[in-house]
Amino acid sequence: MFFAVIPAGGTGTRLWPVSRADRPKFLESLVDPDRSMLQSTVQRVSRLTDSAHTLIVTGAAHAVAVARQLPGISEQNILVEPSPRDSCAAIALAAAVIARRDPDATMGSFAADHVIDDQKRFAEVVTDAIAGAEAGHLMTIGITPTHPETGYGYVQCGARTGLGPVLTVEKFREKPPAEVAREYVDSGKFLWNASMFVWRVDRFLTALARYRPDIHAPIMEIAAVWDEPVRGQILEELWATIPRIAVEYAVMEPAAADHDVATVPGDFGWTDVGDFRALGGLVPPDVTGSMVVAASRPSAPQVVTDRSERLIVVPRGNRLITAIGVHDLVVVDTPDALLISDIDAVQDVKKIVATLSNSGYDAYV
Amino acid sequence: MFFAVIPAGGTGTRLWPVSRADRPKFLESLVDPDRSMLQSTVQRVSRLTDSAHTLIVTGAAHAVAVARQLPGISEQNILVEPSPRDSCAAIALAAAVIARRDPDATMGSFAADHVIDDQKRFAEVVTDAIAGAEAGHLMTIGITPTHPETGYGYVQCGARTGLGPVLTVEKFREKPPAEVAREYVDSGKFLWNASMFVWRVDRFLTALARYRPDIHAPIMEIAAVWDEPVRGQILEELWATIPRIAVEYAVMEPAAADHDVATVPGDFGWTDVGDFRALGGLVPPDVTGSMVVAASRPSAPQVVTDRSERLIVVPRGNRLITAIGVHDLVVVDTPDALLISDIDAVQDVKKIVATLSNSGYDAYV
Repeated sequence: MFFAVIPAGGTGTRLWPVSRADRPKFLESLVDPDRSMLQSTVQRVSRLTDSAHTLIVTGAAHAVAVARQLPGISEQNILVEPSPRDSCAAIALAAAVIARRDPDATMGSFAADHVIDDQKRFAEVVTDAIAGAEAGHLMTIGITPTHPETGYGYVQCGARTGLGPVLTVEKFREKPPAEVAREYVDSGKFLWNASMFVWRVDRFLTALARYRPDIHAPIMEIAAVWDEPVRGQILEELWATIPRIAVEYAVMEPAAADHDVATVPGDFGWTDVGDFRALGGLVPPDVTGSMVVAASRPSAPQVVTDRSERLIVVPRGNRLITAIGVHDLVVVDTPDALLISDIDAVQDVKKIVATLSNSGYDAYV
Repeated sequence: MFFAVIPAGGTGTRLWPVSRADRPKFLESLVDPDRSMLQSTVQRVSRLTDSAHTLIVTGAAHAVAVARQLPGISEQNILVEPSPRDSCAAIALAAAVIARRDPDATMGSFAADHVIDDQKRFAEVVTDAIAGAEAGHLMTIGITPTHPETGYGYVQCGARTGLGPVLTVEKFREKPPAEVAREYVDSGKFLWNASMFVWRVDRFLTALARYRPDIHAPIMEIAAVWDEPVRGQILEELWATIPRIAVEYAVMEPAAADHDVATVPGDFGWTDVGDFRALGGLVPPDVTGSMVVAASRPSAPQVVTDRSERLIVVPRGNRLITAIGVHDLVVVDTPDALLISDIDAVQDVKKIVATLSNSGYDAYV
């Protein structure tokens, strides 16, 4: 049986003021007015498995919101971490809990805050990856690059495995400088690393035991009591001892060196919505080159402009936004905070968030 | 006795979205957090006369708001026009009503939506103008120009009258092109026309009868019954027949040609706050050259910027405003509408207001 795992963590200050420390982007409706990114992700994986086999791993800070957004996911399928220990701990916990329910299970891990255009194609690609996983590979679904992006890590592909579109993975690569990214993309041998994984849980746990016994041991002990009254006590003893590390570093890179990792290229349209420029890219521009990323169906006009071009407007404050003679701006409107940024400077929203934190204005963060 | 008259009319779309059709700028607190422009004007003229001799002329649309903002002004001193007929009708109505209360009165007319820096100097200048008025002149207080503004009309001065600082007025001049404005200012003989007038009411009404008998006749008839039950009926019959014309065109220009107009230069710091650039000019710039025109004393930060310069920010939405890498913008935040404009394009807010009106979104206008 296939289990879908959705790690739902992280803060995402690069989308402030839409996302906040207590309201990360996966809980927000960014493009689809009817559902949050997390709800869209759950709906997406429903093409692959049922809700009884869909697990969310989230932090204590977001457990209530996750539970309320996903009434169809049972309590035992929402795994709440006491504190964030990065992606290896979250994914390993899910794998270990699943292994106790079904030792032969295959699982896929899909971030809660990515946008995917073609849901049908996504399901087809994951199905190909499941075939690779059932053949024993630790699978990653890499994204076919559309441009030499320097903001993502890359997956370097090797030969075909003979199993449909499945390719071996030679190496995971860090975020490259521009000229290296250009070489990667021109070679046709590199995919973007989207942290999307598919594997048999037994294969993954074996690899974890080999490469990171310091994570494997506490995770197995915690999973063993996950459905017991003693869970809280064991979590309190062990959770904080688990090293914080991403699963790529902990497992996938050493496994790739041991030729245990394979990939299926994903050509379904993907973005991790890392900043407002990426968010703007999710909606078609109007005749002025501006993009209005509305999260609701308005009864009133949301944006009225005069001689303005190439704006990315995110109206979340239920107010009319007007612009005169301006261009290449990001305008993000929320009920309690407004951001106006040059498009090329919008990554620096992190600095505004830091300034607010350091000035004692955490209420806005 | 000196009567102060405050015409409180007009809509002021150039300060949208702070001012609205039903909330013109004179009802708003623009700079002083404690009072509206109208309240500031009433306070200013209290240096010259008492509240029993202070009259407001306003439209039916604003009568309730004016009454509530000015509890110290008696009902009989708030003259409510059934419909706007421009400044000649408003000022003539006040003059005629005053003349029935005190035929020997001198009155001054002071717009409700101008900002004056030096209240004491203002009172001194008006006192000089009153002396000129008592000598028989129709006085206008012109503003000593600080730059060759093309957005104002000008008053061309002639010789001294021998009465203190009082100068004869040769001519009223329309808003000039830039090179003409430069000549005016360089000559030292021109003042800005601030539509600030002081005269004996009998002198003014005589001039009105001479130059505009079509206005004088209905105004005198209306004033005769102003305190009678029949007022409403007479207003309904006559008010709408009164020509719409500014008092400059109707009376002051022909009177100047007849050498009956004089002036006192006003050097008390004046702005009519005609647009957001003018509003920004009322507060000192911070180290980035930005001006925050707050109307309240905030308990939270109002504006946090990063690498941004020369912004005019008007925070009226009780929200945090943040800016990254932008410059020379006007940002006006209100509870239901936001304006972002290039500083040099901010006059075009009129076009946004027109667009909203024409699109059926009058609720925002």
